[in-house]
Amino acid sequence: MYSFTCDYTEGAHPEILKRLAETNFQQEPGYGEDSFCASAKTRIREAIGCPDADIFFLVGGTQTNSTVIDGLLKGYQGVLAVQTGHIAVHEAGAIEFCGHKVLTLPQHQGKMDAADLKAWLEAFYADETHPHMVQPGMVYISFPTEYGTIYSRAELEEIGAICKQYGLPLFIDGARLGYGLASPAADVSLKDIARLCDVFYIGGTKVGALCGEAVVFPRGNAPAHFFTHIKMHGALLAKGRLLGIQFDTLFTNGLYLRISDNAIRMAMRVKALFAEKGIPFFIDSPTNQQFPILTSSQMAALEGKVAFEIWERLPDGRAVTRFATSWATREEAIEELSRALN
Amino acid sequence: MYSFTCDYTEGAHPEILKRLAETNFQQEPGYGEDSFCASAKTRIREAIGCPDADIFFLVGGTQTNSTVIDGLLKGYQGVLAVQTGHIAVHEAGAIEFCGHKVLTLPQHQGKMDAADLKAWLEAFYADETHPHMVQPGMVYISFPTEYGTIYSRAELEEIGAICKQYGLPLFIDGARLGYGLASPAADVSLKDIARLCDVFYIGGTKVGALCGEAVVFPRGNAPAHFFTHIKMHGALLAKGRLLGIQFDTLFTNGLYLRISDNAIRMAMRVKALFAEKGIPFFIDSPTNQQFPILTSSQMAALEGKVAFEIWERLPDGRAVTRFATSWATREEAIEELSRALN
Amino acid sequence: MYSFTCDYTEGAHPEILKRLAETNFQQEPGYGEDSFCASAKTRIREAIGCPDADIFFLVGGTQTNSTVIDGLLKGYQGVLAVQTGHIAVHEAGAIEFCGHKVLTLPQHQGKMDAADLKAWLEAFYADETHPHMVQPGMVYISFPTEYGTIYSRAELEEIGAICKQYGLPLFIDGARLGYGLASPAADVSLKDIARLCDVFYIGGTKVGALCGEAVVFPRGNAPAHFFTHIKMHGALLAKGRLLGIQFDTLFTNGLYLRISDNAIRMAMRVKALFAEKGIPFFIDSPTNQQFPILTSSQMAALEGKVAFEIWERLPDGRAVTRFATSWATREEAIEELSRALN
Amino acid sequence: MYSFTCDYTEGAHPEILKRLAETNFQQEPGYGEDSFCASAKTRIREAIGCPDADIFFLVGGTQTNSTVIDGLLKGYQGVLAVQTGHIAVHEAGAIEFCGHKVLTLPQHQGKMDAADLKAWLEAFYADETHPHMVQPGMVYISFPTEYGTIYSRAELEEIGAICKQYGLPLFIDGARLGYGLASPAADVSLKDIARLCDVFYIGGTKVGALCGEAVVFPRGNAPAHFFTHIKMHGALLAKGRLLGIQFDTLFTNGLYLRISDNAIRMAMRVKALFAEKGIPFFIDSPTNQQFPILTSSQMAALEGKVAFEIWERLPDGRAVTRFATSWATREEAIEELSRALN
Repeated sequence: MYSFTCDYTEGAHPEILKRLAETNFQQEPGYGEDSFCASAKTRIREAIGCPDADIFFLVGGTQTNSTVIDGLLKGYQGVLAVQTGHIAVHEAGAIEFCGHKVLTLPQHQGKMDAADLKAWLEAFYADETHPHMVQPGMVYISFPTEYGTIYSRAELEEIGAICKQYGLPLFIDGARLGYGLASPAADVSLKDIARLCDVFYIGGTKVGALCGEAVVFPRGNAPAHFFTHIKMHGALLAKGRLLGIQFDTLFTNGLYLRISDNAIRMAMRVKALFAEKGIPFFIDSPTNQQFPILTSSQMAALEGKVAFEIWERLPDGRAVTRFATSWATREEAIEELSRALN
Repeated sequence: MYSFTCDYTEGAHPEILKRLAETNFQQEPGYGEDSFCASAKTRIREAIGCPDADIFFLVGGTQTNSTVIDGLLKGYQGVLAVQTGHIAVHEAGAIEFCGHKVLTLPQHQGKMDAADLKAWLEAFYADETHPHMVQPGMVYISFPTEYGTIYSRAELEEIGAICKQYGLPLFIDGARLGYGLASPAADVSLKDIARLCDVFYIGGTKVGALCGEAVVFPRGNAPAHFFTHIKMHGALLAKGRLLGIQFDTLFTNGLYLRISDNAIRMAMRVKALFAEKGIPFFIDSPTNQQFPILTSSQMAALEGKVAFEIWERLPDGRAVTRFATSWATREEAIEELSRALN
Repeated sequence: MYSFTCDYTEGAHPEILKRLAETNFQQEPGYGEDSFCASAKTRIREAIGCPDADIFFLVGGTQTNSTVIDGLLKGYQGVLAVQTGHIAVHEAGAIEFCGHKVLTLPQHQGKMDAADLKAWLEAFYADETHPHMVQPGMVYISFPTEYGTIYSRAELEEIGAICKQYGLPLFIDGARLGYGLASPAADVSLKDIARLCDVFYIGGTKVGALCGEAVVFPRGNAPAHFFTHIKMHGALLAKGRLLGIQFDTLFTNGLYLRISDNAIRMAMRVKALFAEKGIPFFIDSPTNQQFPILTSSQMAALEGKVAFEIWERLPDGRAVTRFATSWATREEAIEELSRALN
Repeated sequence: MYSFTCDYTEGAHPEILKRLAETNFQQEPGYGEDSFCASAKTRIREAIGCPDADIFFLVGGTQTNSTVIDGLLKGYQGVLAVQTGHIAVHEAGAIEFCGHKVLTLPQHQGKMDAADLKAWLEAFYADETHPHMVQPGMVYISFPTEYGTIYSRAELEEIGAICKQYGLPLFIDGARLGYGLASPAADVSLKDIARLCDVFYIGGTKVGALCGEAVVFPRGNAPAHFFTHIKMHGALLAKGRLLGIQFDTLFTNGLYLRISDNAIRMAMRVKALFAEKGIPFFIDSPTNQQFPILTSSQMAALEGKVAFEIWERLPDGRAVTRFATSWATREEAIEELSRALN
């Protein structure tokens, strides 16, 4: 039985395991001072077209979000995000744990609307009581979003312009960045992402690595003492080589985008399979997460053949489901799904 | 040139890399719900003789210390530790970041003295102003300590008795636990450790793993909702399998203690080499860290041949140095050191 | 020109100033150990019918909310409140500063609906991902609410029953408690409030005191070491006598409720004045805050005669305004308003 | 029986109570926007010779320390203080609650030694592991100290120069500032204090007020959004007039220093009384706190006549005691002490 429940059901890309084995007894300093991290940073700087970028390798997504956000905000500031943003829902209050409020905006298929952002900021500053309120300190968006949708270049530019106007850094959560960039619907590249925001991260955990997220401050704009800040957050990996080797491998010969492509090709086949059956979708996702709405009997038919996630149960007995593909999804899994649907 | 600078200069024990490769495409759920974590927990419970133990796998040492300590303390409580305790010095304020003071006691070769602890507590409660002060909430010790020393069973029992008397949980930081237990000077076993404290962790990062620390609440005494607490701390690994596989391997056929033995055997040879030369030690360490006091010319003679850490420069021009061995230290390294010293 | 902008434009009830002067040179210990605090506690315990109540005097509302909430919640828990709750909007993130998320429910004229609360909790625990989310740890409501509305006894009982079912303490913010209890619409007494919740506070700042809020744990259920917790929050007043004298005075001969009555009588006259003119209200408030919706010309007519607050500007040019009365509002102010309206 | 136990046993200077009564029904806006706060700020700016000073009125000492320190520090920074500093001992971990470590230096009669500070900083930056440690972010000293001692101008300049060299703001806790300035041993004025540090506060609670501390950033150097920061800390008083009136009164016709003088004159008489008896002192304090070392029989003789505090019991049965005078101490109290000692 193949599982489509999420995009981290397998280990790592075999090339990564191979490099781990090859380099295993090479002695290296800890805490990201190793030669692999150095090489990975060089390759990432080239891939994003930012020779001055500050880059830090962290272990996981929630950790990265809270470390970056807490590193950028002053104590009295909060972070603006849509109500469905990962930091607003599924991080167990990691942002509040650091003392900051998540200020929420409505979501539109998981995305933030530039007009909403503008309206919120205008209303905030027009409200005479705003000194008694949490001050907005940055904007957080995900690319792709938690619903699999992506922002267009124009949308990112519009949001970025408002951020600039109000002096708010723009942070892009790229836990699934590769799957967004590899989407046929994407009109932005990795270089565009780097250009259009103030800080983002390149998700490794969901895109071929055992763990690891590469935080990028594209214009050398990391906060002072960010290393110490990471350590304070318990987010500094002693054997930084584990992260260095993985990102060095992922950014050698375009591996990161190549394996992201696989996820997208497989996702489009999943999408087509459901569409052919006339099964509706909760959202029209162009990336590796697909959300078909299934009836009880459709779900029953899949049982024991392919696994998937129940996203939300609808009052009419149907359920929004999630089928996620990844760098590791194989032809056979799609074929199994196809057979199960017939 | 071989480096004795620390005990995490290499990757992982080859058996771990082999298991990672073998299981790589086996699909598993995330967040520690995988079969490897389950198996690892079973093996650890058996190894520590605690069938009811609650076990959680975290990624690194500072993260583990702050997550455990913040999980056990009430907001108004602090943690008692010696002045040289890792949490008091080298964790960038990770404990204070969680809102808790580290209350420090004098150290004796890196160890806490039961009499000091008792005197501190008696003086605290005798002081009428103590409600205006941080309340003691738990005791933290390291086994082995940051100076490589270890507690005897009697010392642990004495500290534990005071903790019990004052209602303070005893937490043992076992970042190098294997190296303490494998020491010829140790009169405690892994089962003793589990019996003598309220929570401890089995260090993986420094003992054969790429990363990973196994937190153990020996008597099923984990705080409620500790999973959510870990997530809030950014300490929940998405691909928990990475930790599960490593600890499952380390606790199969006694690998953890076997590879710890190697570090100790090598350390004793390092110790003997310095002793034969009449070189004094800063501390008489029975574990994998040795602290010879070297003159400038002795250090110069080693340059380019073996690497080590300067621990502290003495006013007379000499330096306390640290030579650390590990599971990965080989004969050749010792021979190189021997040649360099001659 | 009389100002109706808020309910803390004057100093203190003259009886309080008199007592401050009379007792000024009586030497007393600090930190709430004084004889006035002791006496005030005795009087309050009697007034609320709870001989075992734990009572603490704090200085202000936001301070009290964050100290109480942080004192009751575990680190991984949040507090449930309506979106317009004071803690959710106008406390500059004081709750998040303590590490806790404010989990928001819809408001109905400023009130929490028991059905909403139940539905939220059922949905939360039905969601399989809830261990990745902030855990609900208590419920916060205001009496009266920020919109001047009050809960009926039945509503409080219903909310309390759900809290009990889910093990959530119920906290009532009583910054304006007197004005709620004195309302003709109220069907609860001070004793009912004490019976129906787990902790509440009796607001002094807005009801006759220079400052001060009396936190009450009705059944001796204060968290352990709450004194130290208060101190840690910077909320322990050195000269506790200032709070003791004020609350002792307010609870002598029913002064607290008597002066609350004045605010309500004056508010009902304000309400009648607007109603007579056919001016609509944003909300039908039975307490000391009235929210008439005024046109530009109506506002212009009042200018320079009485002051009030613009609560919210409406798209049609009108504005929701707030007219607050208090213990200090005099006949003349009402008469001035009456003249200005004619 | 007169109590010398501390310097806040009485209420407020009668002039303050008079002004409170006179202005009681004058309507004023809240949150420090009132005319009294404005006037008080003008008077303080003149008294300190700093026309551009930013001034904020807070309620109490611990609150002020934690609000100021948390306002100046970055998340990864700590505050340097002597081991006996109030923030290091008697504030229940209020600084750590805000996430910051108190980095302690040895004390010399309660004072920080510039040479110790310099040595600490040099050692810190010389230690290669310092990025793994809490970064020093500011320096905290008390004037007078918790032991009643004061810094000379030269000492303050020396500490200030080191702070400047290392980019650390210097914060002076002036909870008893008046008593330090009024000491015959003082060679600094209020203007000097303002010139020699980056932020300080003028203690009201212990010097004639019911409550209140005036935080001064002498050169308009308050952190941005400090108002919101204060609110977030629960330290914003709704009826700011209470603080405004008090400081306006204290800084009218030099009342603050005049009443401070009284405390010092009385303290010098207390000191003389003990000295005449040949009673030794724990410390040679030039301010309002005196620390005679009394035998059991001497203490017994005072029992029931004058009250004082036991500071520390000595092994030989004697005790270090504290006798505090204040703005409110009268001749008769000294005479009673004199009789009791004879």
